[in-house]
Amino acid sequence: MTTPKALFFDVFGTCVDWRTSVIAAGEPLGLPAAYADDWRARYQPQLETVRSGLRPWTVLDVLHREALDDVLDAHGVDLPAAQRDELNLVWHRLDPWPDTVAGLAALKAQLVIAPVSNGNIALLVDMARHAGLPWDAILGAELAQAYKPQPEAYLRSVEALGLQPREVMMVAAHNGDLVAAGGLGLMTAFVPRPTEHGPGQTSDLEPEQDYDVVAADLVALAGVLA
Amino acid sequence: MTTPKALFFDVFGTCVDWRTSVIAAGEPLGLPAAYADDWRARYQPQLETVRSGLRPWTVLDVLHREALDDVLDAHGVDLPAAQRDELNLVWHRLDPWPDTVAGLAALKAQLVIAPVSNGNIALLVDMARHAGLPWDAILGAELAQAYKPQPEAYLRSVEALGLQPREVMMVAAHNGDLVAAGGLGLMTAFVPRPTEHGPGQTSDLEPEQDYDVVAADLVALAGVLA
Repeated sequence: MTTPKALFFDVFGTCVDWRTSVIAAGEPLGLPAAYADDWRARYQPQLETVRSGLRPWTVLDVLHREALDDVLDAHGVDLPAAQRDELNLVWHRLDPWPDTVAGLAALKAQLVIAPVSNGNIALLVDMARHAGLPWDAILGAELAQAYKPQPEAYLRSVEALGLQPREVMMVAAHNGDLVAAGGLGLMTAFVPRPTEHGPGQTSDLEPEQDYDVVAADLVALAGVLA
Repeated sequence: MTTPKALFFDVFGTCVDWRTSVIAAGEPLGLPAAYADDWRARYQPQLETVRSGLRPWTVLDVLHREALDDVLDAHGVDLPAAQRDELNLVWHRLDPWPDTVAGLAALKAQLVIAPVSNGNIALLVDMARHAGLPWDAILGAELAQAYKPQPEAYLRSVEALGLQPREVMMVAAHNGDLVAAGGLGLMTAFVPRPTEHGPGQTSDLEPEQDYDVVAADLVALAGVLA
């Protein structure tokens, strides 16, 4: 393996513990933990409406807000619109995993680091400021107007750095993300997050392909690369 | 004046002293100081070919590289292609003005800060790492696929932050940039850089409109805003 020139990071699950943060934001409103899972469960079907072309390009903040209305209905909780808008911003204030900030700082000392996430730019800027994520640039879905795992989301981000796919490594806790990136010629690093979906998680516990790197967390990844 | 939520920065001239850095890169090759001015003089006519639609979207690295061939011809200097490619990257390694890093750090503590430059993303990422510019995101021409002062360059950047034009302030050393941004509803701050073009500079020495802020440098701007 050659050393990459840049690292692309999945964000939700890989860099931040979205579930714990979303659950905590719902507690004062009487929402059970399951509401966080229900909210996230609407994510891939929503993205699919955009990927398929059924719906024009729509940023994740808008999709999250629409899904929230459904989720609140399903849990029988009514909130005024302003409070819904505020709750929707929890996705801008997700907390990092304990290793994330130190790992990214160590990696940034040697390599360009950027999120290649399905989150929109405003969301990722707010999250970076909240969580202390020292990105060199915000790349990914909004730049490409395409949602991972569509090839454009990765390839437009590679192009923006003036690099070739083989010079970039995708870092993710999700096999699907890495299989897509690897298929386009990017290097790949799997960082398991076995509690992303809570204590009963059954998916993405192990690497399902032969990735370039498997590391226990982002500090360990820095130990390998930086 | 209300306090903005985000600041957009012109980069070439406003944040970095491109002329001194470009001159220094030419000296070992026997190029006179005038080559830097000649290189930059080709910039606006090149951008105009893209703005006018005569040429499809083309990033600044490519335009710089084409102009460099002309400039070397004009100065009777021949270089191998690899050395031209390397010299072209001087625009990725421009040095900041003495106040830039401290000013941006102070402003970032309170506000979102982003370049809204005609530089491409790869150029601005490399420059940020070289000069220590702590951007929250890289916005501007490449995101919008439009060169300032085209409205899209500003408005797509505002949209990416989920803001309204009135919530954002454009910071620049150039009247043309601020007049364009102000016309779209952004707030404006003029920071004069009276030696950007060398000791005989005649343009942009004074604010030519009634901007929201006029500050001596970026540290002074932070004193007003942060």
